[in-house]
Amino acid sequence: MGINNFFQLLVPKDKKFIPLFEDSADNLVKGAQLLNKFFIVKDKAEKEIIINQIKEQEKIGDDLTHKIYDELNKTFITPFDREDINKLNGSLDDVLDYIDMVAQSFRIHPPKTEPEAFLHLSELILQAAREIKVAISELHHVKNPKKIMDSCIRINEIENQADDVYDNALADLFENEKDAIELIKVKEMLAALEEGTDKAEDVSDVIKSILVKIA
Amino acid sequence: MGINNFFQLLVPKDKKFIPLFEDSADNLVKGAQLLNKFFIVKDKAEKEIIINQIKEQEKIGDDLTHKIYDELNKTFITPFDREDINKLNGSLDDVLDYIDMVAQSFRIHPPKTEPEAFLHLSELILQAAREIKVAISELHHVKNPKKIMDSCIRINEIENQADDVYDNALADLFENEKDAIELIKVKEMLAALEEGTDKAEDVSDVIKSILVKIA
Amino acid sequence: MGINNFFQLLVPKDKKFIPLFEDSADNLVKGAQLLNKFFIVKDKAEKEIIINQIKEQEKIGDDLTHKIYDELNKTFITPFDREDINKLNGSLDDVLDYIDMVAQSFRIHPPKTEPEAFLHLSELILQAAREIKVAISELHHVKNPKKIMDSCIRINEIENQADDVYDNALADLFENEKDAIELIKVKEMLAALEEGTDKAEDVSDVIKSILVKIA
Repeated sequence: MGINNFFQLLVPKDKKFIPLFEDSADNLVKGAQLLNKFFIVKDKAEKEIIINQIKEQEKIGDDLTHKIYDELNKTFITPFDREDINKLNGSLDDVLDYIDMVAQSFRIHPPKTEPEAFLHLSELILQAAREIKVAISELHHVKNPKKIMDSCIRINEIENQADDVYDNALADLFENEKDAIELIKVKEMLAALEEGTDKAEDVSDVIKSILVKIA
Repeated sequence: MGINNFFQLLVPKDKKFIPLFEDSADNLVKGAQLLNKFFIVKDKAEKEIIINQIKEQEKIGDDLTHKIYDELNKTFITPFDREDINKLNGSLDDVLDYIDMVAQSFRIHPPKTEPEAFLHLSELILQAAREIKVAISELHHVKNPKKIMDSCIRINEIENQADDVYDNALADLFENEKDAIELIKVKEMLAALEEGTDKAEDVSDVIKSILVKIA
Repeated sequence: MGINNFFQLLVPKDKKFIPLFEDSADNLVKGAQLLNKFFIVKDKAEKEIIINQIKEQEKIGDDLTHKIYDELNKTFITPFDREDINKLNGSLDDVLDYIDMVAQSFRIHPPKTEPEAFLHLSELILQAAREIKVAISELHHVKNPKKIMDSCIRINEIENQADDVYDNALADLFENEKDAIELIKVKEMLAALEEGTDKAEDVSDVIKSILVKIA
């Protein structure tokens, strides 16, 4: 019996948590799409609308987080460790929180210029969110832990790329921006965007620690 | 047998850890009261005294943290997972660390003005500390997990409120403060205060994960 | 039977993970030595070389981290909890990440002056790395959990010292640096250095939580 079949035997068919996590991942992808769109559009009024849409998405995420937690309190047999369900739940919530934080920072202290890195980092967050979605769907019909691992590896690569984009944008900022308050505004947003990919990697770490226990 | 009675059966009477955690929560409330008082009083000399009192409280907290850790190393049967005792211990310590960090920042780089939000956030930290105390006492005579959950929900609401207070104060700051160094000072203190409520929510997350395992 | 002998019985001889963790701790010490050297040398070209050497060390660290994770996926019996192996692995990686972050910040936004605290904090990180190495070797031939605890206590003391160095350097900075952008650069580097010792303490917390479970 191969490792994959063995793996399959150990994971009981779950009809409750994984579908909820899939909803949560779907919601995360929507939030990441909105953030990406936010940096594509230039019109101020349109941007304002997207900020509110992201906030809505974040609230839906909160509701899902509470729902998963409540389910956990009512359920005796779970597809993997109760604690890991809890962690996966919290870490998914964190990514969307950072997406919302970026949008809110823009409302709180709009920078005069938007460096290209804002758009680039929002694309990386979106890619990471899509990989998270793939990994979580694979937890469902778990024929192939390798596919899950591949997504985790790609999330790690995305996070490394985000580090480089962040570092270069920051070097650029310190070289060219002479207005300290302007520099702070841009720096904060770059940091929140980069942190978004860190939080995506935290999700992938939770997924990896679930695999480690089952393997 | 209802969930509550079931719950009660599973938690052995504990005469060691929960009393220590109650001391730790008491100590946290005292620290939070001092921080709140710090933003009420205006006299510089009085403020200086309170900063030292907070540092004292933080040291008492450290001693309690070590005591709980040592007890854990000497004890075979614990009222809940050894790991969760460890986490609850660490997370309680973190809240007080942030309270001390706020006070120390004031000593390190006193801002010229104190926005109203400093006082408001210190009130929210105090409220969160009181809810933590309630939740921990309820872990003691655990007749009613619902009361614990209610405190956790209120801590979550307090943290959301703190986010709003922080966001508004920051928007205000970026609009009105033209001195970049002054802006950095106030921003750092606002962030540390807001982080204080985040750390309180981390305590409530640990408590929730204890409930999840027992449920 | 004393606690030490009991402890010894419970830990199966491990020939795989602890040697890998020793490699990881060795690699961390090398990184910390390079960071310390970085603040000793004054020549710009030499500094540039060291930044690259730190990056190399960080990549070796990443490879070790992946190797340990892969081993974990292939191994059924582990010397301590799978989850703790995972956490120890991640936390060791984090310290080196911060060391690299400090070096990279220097490349991204070199400050005009280097306060003495840079050197001092790099020494504290190096001391903490050495204590981590001691604690991990002791996990190997575990005759003496007290020696491990002693290292953990020293790491905690080092972290406290780093807090003081950081606080004083920051007070000094806010008093004397009138150029806001310069202040931001130095403040960021001080914070990353101080965070390096926090991350070392996280490693010691993981080690302490392993001891708690075995005790």
